[in-house]
Amino acid sequence: MTIAALRLLKDQERRLLAGHCWVYSNEVDTRATPLKGLEPGQTVALFGHGGRWLGYAHANPHSLICARLISRDRARPPGSALWAERLRLALDLRSRLYEAPFYRLVFGESDGLPGLVVDRYGDLLAVQLTSAGMERERAALLTALEQLVRPSTIVLRNDVAVRELEGLPQAVETVLGTAPDLLELTEFGTRFLVSPLTGQKTGWFYDQAENRTRLSRFGIAGRVLDVFSYVGAWGVSAAVRGADQVTCVDSSAAALERLMENARRNQVADRVRPVAGDGFEVLRELRDADERFDLVILDPPAFVKRRKDLREGAQAYQRLNRLGLEVLSPGGLLVTSSCSFHMDRDAFLGAVQQAARRAGYQLQLLEAGQQGPDHPVHPAIAETAYLKTFFFRALAS
Amino acid sequence: MTIAALRLLKDQERRLLAGHCWVYSNEVDTRATPLKGLEPGQTVALFGHGGRWLGYAHANPHSLICARLISRDRARPPGSALWAERLRLALDLRSRLYEAPFYRLVFGESDGLPGLVVDRYGDLLAVQLTSAGMERERAALLTALEQLVRPSTIVLRNDVAVRELEGLPQAVETVLGTAPDLLELTEFGTRFLVSPLTGQKTGWFYDQAENRTRLSRFGIAGRVLDVFSYVGAWGVSAAVRGADQVTCVDSSAAALERLMENARRNQVADRVRPVAGDGFEVLRELRDADERFDLVILDPPAFVKRRKDLREGAQAYQRLNRLGLEVLSPGGLLVTSSCSFHMDRDAFLGAVQQAARRAGYQLQLLEAGQQGPDHPVHPAIAETAYLKTFFFRALAS
Repeated sequence: MTIAALRLLKDQERRLLAGHCWVYSNEVDTRATPLKGLEPGQTVALFGHGGRWLGYAHANPHSLICARLISRDRARPPGSALWAERLRLALDLRSRLYEAPFYRLVFGESDGLPGLVVDRYGDLLAVQLTSAGMERERAALLTALEQLVRPSTIVLRNDVAVRELEGLPQAVETVLGTAPDLLELTEFGTRFLVSPLTGQKTGWFYDQAENRTRLSRFGIAGRVLDVFSYVGAWGVSAAVRGADQVTCVDSSAAALERLMENARRNQVADRVRPVAGDGFEVLRELRDADERFDLVILDPPAFVKRRKDLREGAQAYQRLNRLGLEVLSPGGLLVTSSCSFHMDRDAFLGAVQQAARRAGYQLQLLEAGQQGPDHPVHPAIAETAYLKTFFFRALAS
Repeated sequence: MTIAALRLLKDQERRLLAGHCWVYSNEVDTRATPLKGLEPGQTVALFGHGGRWLGYAHANPHSLICARLISRDRARPPGSALWAERLRLALDLRSRLYEAPFYRLVFGESDGLPGLVVDRYGDLLAVQLTSAGMERERAALLTALEQLVRPSTIVLRNDVAVRELEGLPQAVETVLGTAPDLLELTEFGTRFLVSPLTGQKTGWFYDQAENRTRLSRFGIAGRVLDVFSYVGAWGVSAAVRGADQVTCVDSSAAALERLMENARRNQVADRVRPVAGDGFEVLRELRDADERFDLVILDPPAFVKRRKDLREGAQAYQRLNRLGLEVLSPGGLLVTSSCSFHMDRDAFLGAVQQAARRAGYQLQLLEAGQQGPDHPVHPAIAETAYLKTFFFRALAS
């Protein structure tokens, strides 16, 4: 069987040699090796302009990222054997790190599996295929996952917008067993209900789990405010870990209903107050009512979804953090997050610092977290480092 | 009493308004307000070019940093009351964070006390005065510390080169009580002997304590290599926490002797092997002898001490990390640090990634630590963020 070749234009292999794995369509020497005619997801052999072997890749002629390097080793092409090997390495890491099988099992590029995300909820796997290449390998990947993990249930949570960039339809399917509407997950001693078929992401934001755990390090007490609370991963957990009163703000009434269920499940409903509304607006109201909190948690959705939204998004982060600080007691703790990849660590830190100057606070950065270790960062692929969670003490300046 | 004024040149107050606290001598309008004639350490009132009040500062006409802003509040000038207030805030944070009184109690600018560092070893305080301003306030600061902490011993560890930039002599003095040659410190269950009068820094590298604690998160087992081990803070602790065998490399025979004392003190001497020699050379020997480790820890002294050494220093970090990876087993853990402020986080990450490509490894960044929370970062003062400690899993690429 011969494999189609893709040759890059002159000097376009640098990113790949540095460790990245994406090829953009304008980097391909399409005269020598046309993209047209390739099938979405087909495996190709990648070469530098001078003929240097770069590796096997999954191609997609219809996507801006027209090829994703899968293997640099000529002897290990994409396919069942490679999937089994990579999945085993991914599982090894999580088994080493986690006592219970609740984590992101596969984090795409960082686990050498571009286009594949797998979240694990005990015996249930939630799988996302986000490239035409992985979509094409679907059967082989599911078989490899079944053999390795022996799950009772596999759900395909292919309801992610990024699939459209690859020309793939969005859908949710249960491909093994029967998925429950709700399952229970325990994070650092707090129990939560998760909806694997309909919840945001695959039902849980595993990426913040490590940071939430870390919160205990800084002491949880007094009055806590959790803005963009969703189902209470931060807020309910803060109540369980010693807060006197937690106010949870979210625009979704359904999320707040689930949050209160979670609070009851942990016997802290009397200390949790749900507030439905826009995060910014509720913060303004709290400020104007002179309410003050000892711990403010700001974990909003991404404000910068595209690079061109950076300026506006940075202003939104600054406004949000200023409001958060304005309802914080002096000496209190601000936990603030950005999951916008385009807003890098320094830019986000700068936005919060500007907010602090305007709010009349001096900040002390006690800890700067990224995603948990089940979402490892690939040091050559900046796109894999998207989450920043800062822990500040705020002093009157 | 009138206070001398310092007026800045046009547009030179921006850094201060953003939250920084240093003024460089070329930013002062010396025609309007000459530096000449000011006494080193004297308090001045800082104004922008247009007369805008900026705050009280400690001046030093002989230093490149000719003024350090101490207080932005007209009603709170430098002096005993302010020191008591700032020290109380500093202690509040550490009391909240630490079960036992072993930590950096004051971290200069980040605690609103530029020029002052205080490390606490139970009842002993090790103090460093690194500006003429704080030197001048010495008596008031020591009194405030005594009243707040009630220590039995205070040592001035003024044997730091940075004092010379301020025209101050280097010296070590015991100014309260009697300092022991050795004291015992327990870090995360491991006991260590510390020399408060002669040890590096003030005897202990508290800045890495949080990262060392974190090592357990990633599993310690098998063969461990600790390069630039000093007295064994990483290595002996790894042996206590489950390593089968730990090789500790340091160029100082005295440090290794102390390290073995520490190992014996924790009943792990049979699992710790000291190797005297240059870190790079020993790594080359280990590599050439085909030795492999499951966990490699690289915690060297700063390779980039001045900005102009950046290129050379970056190469040294790259060489070191390549060597470290070459003696690491596939799937093993690399813990690698840089305490060079001039080598920023991204540059250091880039250097390690390049080392990995050359060593034939793909890295997964599991955790990126900074200094512990007793060394908070001031988000407007980049100089306060100097330590980077990365935790990687290394996979054959």
